[in-house]
Amino acid sequence: MQGEILTIGDELISGRVLNLNGWYAAGRLTALGLAITNITALGDDPAAISAALFVALGRSNFIIVSGGLGTTKDDITVEVVSRLLCCPLELQEPLLDHIKAVAAKWRVPWTPALEKLAWLPRGATIINPGGTTAGFTLWYQGKPIFFLPGVPEEMRMLMDRHVIPFLLNLYPDRPTIARRTLKIFGPTEAWVGDMIGRLDDELNDVIIGYYPNFPEIHLTITARDKNPARAEEVLHQAEQAIMAQVGAFVFARDDDTIESVVGDLLKKAGRTLAVAESCTGGLICHRLTGVPGSSAYFERGLVVYSNRAKEELLGVPHETIVTHGAVSSETALAMATGVRQASGADVGLAVTGIAGPDGGTTEKPVGTVYLSLAAAEGAITELRQFFGRRDQIKILSAHTALDWVRRYLTDDSFLHRH
Amino acid sequence: MQGEILTIGDELISGRVLNLNGWYAAGRLTALGLAITNITALGDDPAAISAALFVALGRSNFIIVSGGLGTTKDDITVEVVSRLLCCPLELQEPLLDHIKAVAAKWRVPWTPALEKLAWLPRGATIINPGGTTAGFTLWYQGKPIFFLPGVPEEMRMLMDRHVIPFLLNLYPDRPTIARRTLKIFGPTEAWVGDMIGRLDDELNDVIIGYYPNFPEIHLTITARDKNPARAEEVLHQAEQAIMAQVGAFVFARDDDTIESVVGDLLKKAGRTLAVAESCTGGLICHRLTGVPGSSAYFERGLVVYSNRAKEELLGVPHETIVTHGAVSSETALAMATGVRQASGADVGLAVTGIAGPDGGTTEKPVGTVYLSLAAAEGAITELRQFFGRRDQIKILSAHTALDWVRRYLTDDSFLHRH
Repeated sequence: MQGEILTIGDELISGRVLNLNGWYAAGRLTALGLAITNITALGDDPAAISAALFVALGRSNFIIVSGGLGTTKDDITVEVVSRLLCCPLELQEPLLDHIKAVAAKWRVPWTPALEKLAWLPRGATIINPGGTTAGFTLWYQGKPIFFLPGVPEEMRMLMDRHVIPFLLNLYPDRPTIARRTLKIFGPTEAWVGDMIGRLDDELNDVIIGYYPNFPEIHLTITARDKNPARAEEVLHQAEQAIMAQVGAFVFARDDDTIESVVGDLLKKAGRTLAVAESCTGGLICHRLTGVPGSSAYFERGLVVYSNRAKEELLGVPHETIVTHGAVSSETALAMATGVRQASGADVGLAVTGIAGPDGGTTEKPVGTVYLSLAAAEGAITELRQFFGRRDQIKILSAHTALDWVRRYLTDDSFLHRH
Repeated sequence: MQGEILTIGDELISGRVLNLNGWYAAGRLTALGLAITNITALGDDPAAISAALFVALGRSNFIIVSGGLGTTKDDITVEVVSRLLCCPLELQEPLLDHIKAVAAKWRVPWTPALEKLAWLPRGATIINPGGTTAGFTLWYQGKPIFFLPGVPEEMRMLMDRHVIPFLLNLYPDRPTIARRTLKIFGPTEAWVGDMIGRLDDELNDVIIGYYPNFPEIHLTITARDKNPARAEEVLHQAEQAIMAQVGAFVFARDDDTIESVVGDLLKKAGRTLAVAESCTGGLICHRLTGVPGSSAYFERGLVVYSNRAKEELLGVPHETIVTHGAVSSETALAMATGVRQASGADVGLAVTGIAGPDGGTTEKPVGTVYLSLAAAEGAITELRQFFGRRDQIKILSAHTALDWVRRYLTDDSFLHRH
């Protein structure tokens, strides 16, 4: 059973607004085993809407239309559908009363434009008139078409409360979808593709997708089966085969992030972390503190942009900076040990580098970044050369640093790998 | 001259990924007077891609296709197009050499999958192979089709550097679009709508759009005219009328951000800033240091999650925290003056609050945030009550704090407004 989504509004095709409704509906339906084949964004244009709806009716089992149901002159969805499907508009008295009641309650002054909301195509079933804008369903040649308002909050409410239960009931025989996302950091997409390519024979029963999500690669494994247990089993086997190939670079699964994984590991180990950031400029701290409960393990973070701050706050010796430079292995190590000592945290993490676009030299070009992690057992410091814009170098550096904490907490040999 | 956009990838129709490429291309082209009629998202499905391309060729003057050009098995755009338009694939030797050179430079290990990138349909013109993934143009019945990679960074680069100049050159007679975006922080969308509604008579010649971009409201003013000077003049008059209504809440225009505005103001005033963050957890520092050249005015930032860090690093008296709490007006003020003194910066900025979801009390619920700004002339401290999720409270707090620096630097009475 496959459907498609038509989203209507000039703001969508002029690039003023992201198509959140299409994204939301597709995500919810796909997760429930209802495939979406097309998401189309159209302007407030009768010909374009008619054509798209006509094509969709020819190829899809159900259609979700959002937008163009409002009070203003450019809201034309209802009129266009009425003409295309030959269902004349009729005033729905109970809906009109409801709209009047809502308007009075919200102290919206009554205007003739509001009456427009109560005129629907003949045969329409009103869905859940919770606000002033109602959604409705029309059937055409055995296929349901759901018309939903374009305001994301209203659209989502009607999707969740009405459209999804309705479709699940209509198509009880849909397959179960079991899905896993593996989040990969480090190798290129081509390398991942090659590694997975070797498994062709073993992955016949699943769909593999991968897409870059800078700086990560997300690899999805999807198993479809009428039998939920079988879907899970197929998924599990495929995941194991894939992990054997690329597991070394998988830092998180599904909704986990590098910072949530690091947080869980720190909590489990009962250890605390302190961070000294130069070129990442607070991004590592921001990501760590985005996790609820991070105050349990995140002690402090120092964004030491100036040399003075590096010396005063972290005790980096003035001579170290003068001799080796603020961007050097020696300074990175002194930052990591310094922040660890000053804070009393178990783990000290430091990053110093050149994020650009200026400040690079022949010896230390933009993207030169030193990372250091210090713990009771010792410390590790490394140079990385990143490429990209300032924001990309910040993100790559922060991700690498957070991944170091993960590796340190999951691999006893991490500090001694050289 | 109207075009359309086809975006390809299972991740788009399964709701895993927002259609950023469609949004970006539509926004850029519309701003330049080139209308986009449809944005379609499709899966990695040969039949669906062929059908969509076929329909698009029938109705549009130009087509932009993004996605499916990569190295992996599910990247099938090139093959599908080759078959649909009867242009057999050919190995482009110079492109292959280029890909090899880029791979070597970026230290990407060579794999057979990378060779796939050098096979293009006969007649294809390679566009700007800046990365490993090239885009290309094909002509069909006098209409250009642009094939761009799906990775947003690469797609945007090829759009900006090649597709847009190419289309502007191809269609010189389009109307000029003059557009301004005013970025508003503080009031609700409904209030902005009411204020702008009063100007109906004065804004006949422009199109006004507004849309929330959390935590900002972006108001766009668009003027279209064949005469560029006239378009600019109409835009200018409308902007002045709107600024008279809502100017007090406009913190930036067009591509400026609150952090770039603050950076410019600090640079112009020759002053430096130091930041002490508790509940914002590094976000203020991250945003400030995202601006190239921020090291000229950003001295240091302290993410003081623990009370110990607040006392040691900022000299917040132990008694202040014990008596009034870490989330209090007194602690916020001590943090701002403390970070200013310790760093020697001209301005000290501090935020302490409860980002949630836990940690709230009846007296100080989640979203309770104290801000403080200290300078040579004095200091200001205020309580704000925000609502939302943890990430939203962090963003609202950081935005408010940065806006304080802007107001302080542009309004002499800011420190004395009570």
